[in-house]
Amino acid sequence: MFPADAIARARRYVQMLPGGTGAYTNSQGIEGVREEVAAFIAARDGGVAAHASDVFLTDGASPAVQMLIRAMTRDKKDTLLIPIPQYPLYSASIALYGGSQAGYYLNEAKGWSLELPELARAYKAAKAAGQHVRGLAVINPGNPTGNCLSESNIRDVLSFASEQGLVVLADEVYQDNVWAAGKPFRSFKSVACAMGLVDPANTHANKGLQLASFHSTSKGFSGECGRRGGYVELVGFDPAVRAELYKLASVSLCANTGGQIMMGLLTNPPAPGQPSYATYASERDAILASLKRRALKLVAALNTLEGVSCQAPEGALYVFPSITLPPKAIAAAAAAGKAADALYCLELLDATGVVLVPGSGFGQADGSWHFRSTILPSEGDMDRVIGALSTFHARFLAQWR
Amino acid sequence: MFPADAIARARRYVQMLPGGTGAYTNSQGIEGVREEVAAFIAARDGGVAAHASDVFLTDGASPAVQMLIRAMTRDKKDTLLIPIPQYPLYSASIALYGGSQAGYYLNEAKGWSLELPELARAYKAAKAAGQHVRGLAVINPGNPTGNCLSESNIRDVLSFASEQGLVVLADEVYQDNVWAAGKPFRSFKSVACAMGLVDPANTHANKGLQLASFHSTSKGFSGECGRRGGYVELVGFDPAVRAELYKLASVSLCANTGGQIMMGLLTNPPAPGQPSYATYASERDAILASLKRRALKLVAALNTLEGVSCQAPEGALYVFPSITLPPKAIAAAAAAGKAADALYCLELLDATGVVLVPGSGFGQADGSWHFRSTILPSEGDMDRVIGALSTFHARFLAQWR
Repeated sequence: MFPADAIARARRYVQMLPGGTGAYTNSQGIEGVREEVAAFIAARDGGVAAHASDVFLTDGASPAVQMLIRAMTRDKKDTLLIPIPQYPLYSASIALYGGSQAGYYLNEAKGWSLELPELARAYKAAKAAGQHVRGLAVINPGNPTGNCLSESNIRDVLSFASEQGLVVLADEVYQDNVWAAGKPFRSFKSVACAMGLVDPANTHANKGLQLASFHSTSKGFSGECGRRGGYVELVGFDPAVRAELYKLASVSLCANTGGQIMMGLLTNPPAPGQPSYATYASERDAILASLKRRALKLVAALNTLEGVSCQAPEGALYVFPSITLPPKAIAAAAAAGKAADALYCLELLDATGVVLVPGSGFGQADGSWHFRSTILPSEGDMDRVIGALSTFHARFLAQWR
Repeated sequence: MFPADAIARARRYVQMLPGGTGAYTNSQGIEGVREEVAAFIAARDGGVAAHASDVFLTDGASPAVQMLIRAMTRDKKDTLLIPIPQYPLYSASIALYGGSQAGYYLNEAKGWSLELPELARAYKAAKAAGQHVRGLAVINPGNPTGNCLSESNIRDVLSFASEQGLVVLADEVYQDNVWAAGKPFRSFKSVACAMGLVDPANTHANKGLQLASFHSTSKGFSGECGRRGGYVELVGFDPAVRAELYKLASVSLCANTGGQIMMGLLTNPPAPGQPSYATYASERDAILASLKRRALKLVAALNTLEGVSCQAPEGALYVFPSITLPPKAIAAAAAAGKAADALYCLELLDATGVVLVPGSGFGQADGSWHFRSTILPSEGDMDRVIGALSTFHARFLAQWR
């Protein structure tokens, strides 16, 4: 009924869990799974060291991000640099733990690129306002923008963080979702090793950089988001800080065992030569190819709409077009206490059932409007979604012209 | 291979989850499971109303408790009354969110009972210190004490909370673990309904009490703690507050689907007449009877040890004996920067491999020492554990006499 390698894999997890999947695990996660994660990181990053003791398994990446933000926040002066637009987990968690955010704007005109002068501007402005800037969040590939950082971009960010003593939170949950040709995913850790900011033979040790990298079973080609599997790898963190993070993790006892095992499956998939490999590889390739086709199709369609301009996403699962809204619609939304892009999205939802998320939920340059769409409707549904959106869009513009 | 009712049950969950167990659910939890939980509460509490919209499914009870404490804490002045001794989730979460705790002492001499004058003393002391007392946590059956509140106790607590406008956090995760004869579990909600503080026909509405009750798949007779399934039911909460809690829950997207389904299984078990019922009932009864035997055996053994006095637990999974330690041991521990009960537990661990948790981790009256032991060693292991503890105890006393 099951291939031999799947049975062997199941046996291995059973051995890792003498109390079964129903028992609490180590608060940092099942050691055998953390070893699988460490081996994955080492292989991904060209053979640099990775230590199971630096990996925390969590209920998805969100609690891992929250744990780090919690640890970095003493009071309202403690500030995290975050991209604008950003996935609102960051702004929400900062608010929850009583810290402050300082936004650095991504450059939409250049494919939502991250530019060092803008990062430095945001940092200096926060310092000038008396804030303690403690860290820097980067989402790569980007949510909601879909941009992928070049290696030179990553070097800029890492040099800056190291010089200013900022912890880098590298949200790399879309690392398997890269659509741009010739732009392979490069992890922050691998670049930091290449720069000498991390010792590739001992990535525990601090050589002038503290880096936390997040990953998840929710994205990629598995998309097992309801299972809540995630990890954070700490690089260059002091053992005393890691011990405090362990204490934080232990407040909720442990991550769910199913999600932990799912993270093992994601990071240690069937290998060439194993009975399951052909099925695994063909499913993986088919899903990723389909997602890429959907991304390109959606972008092309959006760019035909009046007043809509969409950067081609290089990765992740989203597009984030700008939209020029009629002044009357903007005024009517303001009168109703709504952002204009929220009005647009709510009316779209009512008219078509299609859900877009207004740009105001992610942050955007003043006076600009955007929405985020996923690329997730099935290929069979995508034409219908695009048709419904196009019809609505024309009607909305005509209504408020 | 599986009984017909198990197959029907699996089909029902499949229908509840059109995206499968891998998709995100509603941030409040799967609606069908919340309906199962609501039906369970209604039946448990003698037919009072229970609303699926008041139930939040969570990754175990711990995140549910943290969510409520987060929502109740604005600043250091916001204070929660907590029992001493207490399960340290409460003190840890209060510290995490920047609030304050005020301890009310349980009365060890009366089986760790909760007494109104002591609760009122703690409340008044906090008020006198300028604190804003916002709520009151009660663990029933108690962790680490194993006490079970009588109905009149619960009435006292509820009257007091209602008069002072305190939110009651009722940690009822051990509701299936009651060992005392003639003292059936009474939920805070059922007593509040009987008192008229909650409208039994509409437990949404506020009639002068806000009550949050927590439950878990981790305890009881299922003990599926690694699966991380829990819920909180809100009673008498304003819809605007519930909406804020929904927003908090949505920061981490949703609880893991496996744990949510586990909570459905716990609250909607096989019913008499169904093919699985006989197996279910015999396993449940065997587990609970064994736990009770182990509790009684452990208490009897502890009470034979010199200087150890153990209240018989009425419920939960623990015993919490007091222990008279030799002054020399206390002085030696202090010189090493340790609590004396921590020294005792560490030496026990080194000598025998048996893990006890020092009372200082839970809080205890000044000058008293305790440890918490679970009743969870198997019946086959219990004699060995008791033997090892007894031998160690005698040697420890002789060493420090």
